Amino acid sequence: MSVSRYTYLGPEGTFTEAALRTLPEAATRELVPMVSVPAALDAVRSGSAAAALVPIENSVEGGVTATLDELATGEPLMIYREVLLPIAFALLVRPGTALADVKTVTGHPVAQPQVRNWLAAHLPDAQWESAASNADGARLVQEGRYDAAFAGEFAAARYGLEPLVSEIHDAENAVTRFVLVGRPARPAAWTGADKTSVVIWLGDDHPGALLELLQEYAARGVNMMRIESRPTGQGMGRYCFSVDCEGHINDRRVASVLMGLKRICPKVRFLGSYPRAGVDPSMVGPLRPGTSDDEFVAAAEWVARCQDGRAA
Amino acid sequence: MSVSRYTYLGPEGTFTEAALRTLPEAATRELVPMVSVPAALDAVRSGSAAAALVPIENSVEGGVTATLDELATGEPLMIYREVLLPIAFALLVRPGTALADVKTVTGHPVAQPQVRNWLAAHLPDAQWESAASNADGARLVQEGRYDAAFAGEFAAARYGLEPLVSEIHDAENAVTRFVLVGRPARPAAWTGADKTSVVIWLGDDHPGALLELLQEYAARGVNMMRIESRPTGQGMGRYCFSVDCEGHINDRRVASVLMGLKRICPKVRFLGSYPRAGVDPSMVGPLRPGTSDDEFVAAAEWVARCQDGRAA
Amino acid sequence: MSVSRYTYLGPEGTFTEAALRTLPEAATRELVPMVSVPAALDAVRSGSAAAALVPIENSVEGGVTATLDELATGEPLMIYREVLLPIAFALLVRPGTALADVKTVTGHPVAQPQVRNWLAAHLPDAQWESAASNADGARLVQEGRYDAAFAGEFAAARYGLEPLVSEIHDAENAVTRFVLVGRPARPAAWTGADKTSVVIWLGDDHPGALLELLQEYAARGVNMMRIESRPTGQGMGRYCFSVDCEGHINDRRVASVLMGLKRICPKVRFLGSYPRAGVDPSMVGPLRPGTSDDEFVAAAEWVARCQDGRAA
Amino acid sequence: MSVSRYTYLGPEGTFTEAALRTLPEAATRELVPMVSVPAALDAVRSGSAAAALVPIENSVEGGVTATLDELATGEPLMIYREVLLPIAFALLVRPGTALADVKTVTGHPVAQPQVRNWLAAHLPDAQWESAASNADGARLVQEGRYDAAFAGEFAAARYGLEPLVSEIHDAENAVTRFVLVGRPARPAAWTGADKTSVVIWLGDDHPGALLELLQEYAARGVNMMRIESRPTGQGMGRYCFSVDCEGHINDRRVASVLMGLKRICPKVRFLGSYPRAGVDPSMVGPLRPGTSDDEFVAAAEWVARCQDGRAA
Repeated sequence: MSVSRYTYLGPEGTFTEAALRTLPEAATRELVPMVSVPAALDAVRSGSAAAALVPIENSVEGGVTATLDELATGEPLMIYREVLLPIAFALLVRPGTALADVKTVTGHPVAQPQVRNWLAAHLPDAQWESAASNADGARLVQEGRYDAAFAGEFAAARYGLEPLVSEIHDAENAVTRFVLVGRPARPAAWTGADKTSVVIWLGDDHPGALLELLQEYAARGVNMMRIESRPTGQGMGRYCFSVDCEGHINDRRVASVLMGLKRICPKVRFLGSYPRAGVDPSMVGPLRPGTSDDEFVAAAEWVARCQDGRAA
Repeated sequence: MSVSRYTYLGPEGTFTEAALRTLPEAATRELVPMVSVPAALDAVRSGSAAAALVPIENSVEGGVTATLDELATGEPLMIYREVLLPIAFALLVRPGTALADVKTVTGHPVAQPQVRNWLAAHLPDAQWESAASNADGARLVQEGRYDAAFAGEFAAARYGLEPLVSEIHDAENAVTRFVLVGRPARPAAWTGADKTSVVIWLGDDHPGALLELLQEYAARGVNMMRIESRPTGQGMGRYCFSVDCEGHINDRRVASVLMGLKRICPKVRFLGSYPRAGVDPSMVGPLRPGTSDDEFVAAAEWVARCQDGRAA
Repeated sequence: MSVSRYTYLGPEGTFTEAALRTLPEAATRELVPMVSVPAALDAVRSGSAAAALVPIENSVEGGVTATLDELATGEPLMIYREVLLPIAFALLVRPGTALADVKTVTGHPVAQPQVRNWLAAHLPDAQWESAASNADGARLVQEGRYDAAFAGEFAAARYGLEPLVSEIHDAENAVTRFVLVGRPARPAAWTGADKTSVVIWLGDDHPGALLELLQEYAARGVNMMRIESRPTGQGMGRYCFSVDCEGHINDRRVASVLMGLKRICPKVRFLGSYPRAGVDPSMVGPLRPGTSDDEFVAAAEWVARCQDGRAA
Repeated sequence: MSVSRYTYLGPEGTFTEAALRTLPEAATRELVPMVSVPAALDAVRSGSAAAALVPIENSVEGGVTATLDELATGEPLMIYREVLLPIAFALLVRPGTALADVKTVTGHPVAQPQVRNWLAAHLPDAQWESAASNADGARLVQEGRYDAAFAGEFAAARYGLEPLVSEIHDAENAVTRFVLVGRPARPAAWTGADKTSVVIWLGDDHPGALLELLQEYAARGVNMMRIESRPTGQGMGRYCFSVDCEGHINDRRVASVLMGLKRICPKVRFLGSYPRAGVDPSMVGPLRPGTSDDEFVAAAEWVARCQDGRAA
């Protein structure tokens, strides 16, 4: 195993690489682009990389299903960090190209809906064709196959292009969330502004199962931040749920939720507890009464005293 | 403290005494009738008796509020056993009295609704007056103040009366439940067919609090057997709840419910875990999946492994 | 039927009579004391009285089971008004009696726990014996059978007694709630500060039934004000629930709750909607968003439009 | 508007076209392939097509986000039918190509994970490159750009290719669900085996909102069949939910759920009620007690009688 190697969803010049480079440790790691999310994660599973950075959610396009499904199946992996990256596209062209010259544009299929309005307004007649990635689109412009590509502005230099227009995004505040994934080990340290991710499978024949699952969270005042259903591949109508909640597995309220899930669901996969990106612990709101660690400990001690005949 | 003395709600000849005598240990105890439930229980609190037998619920008349309120307030007490006694009244008269001679009848106020239909059918013109207890009514018949008293048939001999009619009860299967109450100590041993009693106070300003309380039980598949609201004395609309559920505090699902209650409610009083009267452990139905001790232990171990980085 | 006759739980001089006399209409009705709650209500059922005033709840002693059970069974009745009466006892004696002369005291059994502390402090050696009612206790003092009776101060004159001590009550703010009961008809007019009472029977074999019942209320933001379990007489462990909630059956959120209860419970008895005593409509807090009549109407209209293919 | 024109997600030769041709009415319509789901649906919105068939869910890959998002936003549309199509791929090649000759393969990105295992086993060295659609991949094979394409076997003839291998699918029972979408009008007729689709937005600052939403369904015994979160585009962590449930808006239990959702959620979009594909009404299980139309009607009538003073 090479502890110094991190893989990421390539090719070079994608937003994933940009996100990875925001991590201080990236400066001292060998960063290896991989052709796909499964490839990036399999490198971790096989031990040829210490960790992989992959996108997991986009505020416009939703969950990245390849990542969700890879984390839910196969050899277990664990999330250690998340990175948020604002997404803005630049229209990259070969030097000298003017907007009026752009007849064909390319980019990742996920980019298209994020620039659709801009295209309709500024290049209504340009023809869109999808590329395997934003960076790949840039390469195809370099090769002359298209006139322009939507990509991160940081990709321009790498492919000998220049940004004709910058900061293009139909939705305000488009953000992509990336996760740094490694092999299972002790979760990231508690910070007080943490997030815990799990995948939960429901029993087949139980209509109220999803409700019961949510009640395990609600009963302990643990806020759910994201819930996403994914098919299990067992047939239409069979789902598992990818769920993020506030708090760390070392918070007793979260540990208690996980125990409840483990008991009532046929399968639960723990994906890690890790700091919430961009949230300072001092900004986290107060807990619901009765859900602090102290209150959990006090309640357990009270029951123990009752069992021993020493209840006050 | 006299370990050999048991008090009970007197006077002699009441159903409570009959219930107490069904306990094998009663044969070797000094049995002391007390004038009221509070008096019987205060003898336990003060140490002058080891335990007290008092009625807590009647299948026709409902909860015995004096007992419920005494258990909820004052120095804590604990329930160690319950006794179920079928309630049937005899019409006790002085020897030689015929039904046609009965112009006045007496009995405990609680007895009246249980014999009302019988009275209307067989003694429509007799005048009812309440006595302090069924046994007291028998005494008043002995003294000649009334012609007949409703009481347990076992009270006849004590007061020189005879049962003119037996097995009187408007409701089929009328039963009274009594509890043997002592000072707080280690709960009664686990049998597999147990019951756990608590008193729960809700926060003042929380409309959904009762719902949350019930969900603590429901979430662990713990069946509630009885719930009774009692005023707290803090004003109209302020209640506490006396709740019995299936299971023993040493069952992890029950311990988990109690911890939940302790956390979310301002006050919980544990009244004991004790065998369910008349229920053989082999008759107890299966647990809901996910609520056995083994499953609770497995879930806790799984979370511990996740915390340690050793999750499967 | 005599529309001019109201019955009440007698005898004369009880708190019930005092409560009844707070109603303006009492001045123009014939007020007839009855020997018991069933007798007072049966007079209404038979048409010999237009309405009956009976106690239903005491802030110290809890529900009046005779009233709860009479309303739950037999020919249906309906509540049209409620009356709240602060309860304070006077110690009534024959003129000339001093406190030091009081060796025996009497009163209704329900009075005893409300004066117990006072007795312990001021008459520790006096012997208590229960009377059929507080007024009856006063009569027995008049007859010389006891030295003093706890009763409402208003009862003194009627029995030729005088109040030796006034305003006796262990609990601050002890209040009894009375209800004016008539035959079923259109409920009392909506005021904006109303209460709705029902009795609900649960299915036999359904552990979560009580939870579902409460959720019908919670889902519409309808605050439950009182819930009381009563045995159905079908055997130990079989209960029905007497429930009061805020709001009027003509409020759509309340009507919706009642429809839900009617569907999921084997039996529901509507006991009436009537003004909340002592609550001005202007004091009633805001409704939970989504539960106003306007929002109910708007939602129904939206669904109708969807059904007709005209949804916005 | 041309009532005779249906659009679909093209190009010709895709599974969508195959699904569309399973509809009897397709034989008498002009079927027009469109370049994207938005284009297919916009043709309906503009009136240039009467309806559009688009994929909405795949049992392996999950929801088709373009379709989910188009239905959730923009001018309202309505689902009138669903079509289920088993998905099996053929490996299409130019006549004469042998398996050993295949060095490069193409197909839609969604096809790749469904044939990944097959590729690893049979063409471990072949290089995959994505095409804009399965049909487009076939066209590129025809043009000689790739050696083979994964597509529906029905696409072979159209592009002068032949199926070298048939029935390729990693997952057993892979199925894609398509929906026939038109402008809003009266929903499809009730059949007894129906499905109702909605999009629900939750209030921003309400952690328990998803739980309340699910309880609206659960309280009426309405089974949820699919729930999918989608970003609203308002920023990370803001979701709406696409939900399918059993039953028709003309079923009172479903109408009641929709009214509840409309009241408690800031926005609900009704997407239609339509027959469940492949489910015969005689196969549909019994309703939960208390949720039939008759029971809803009876409950409403009972409340109306209570309001009128005529309750039994």
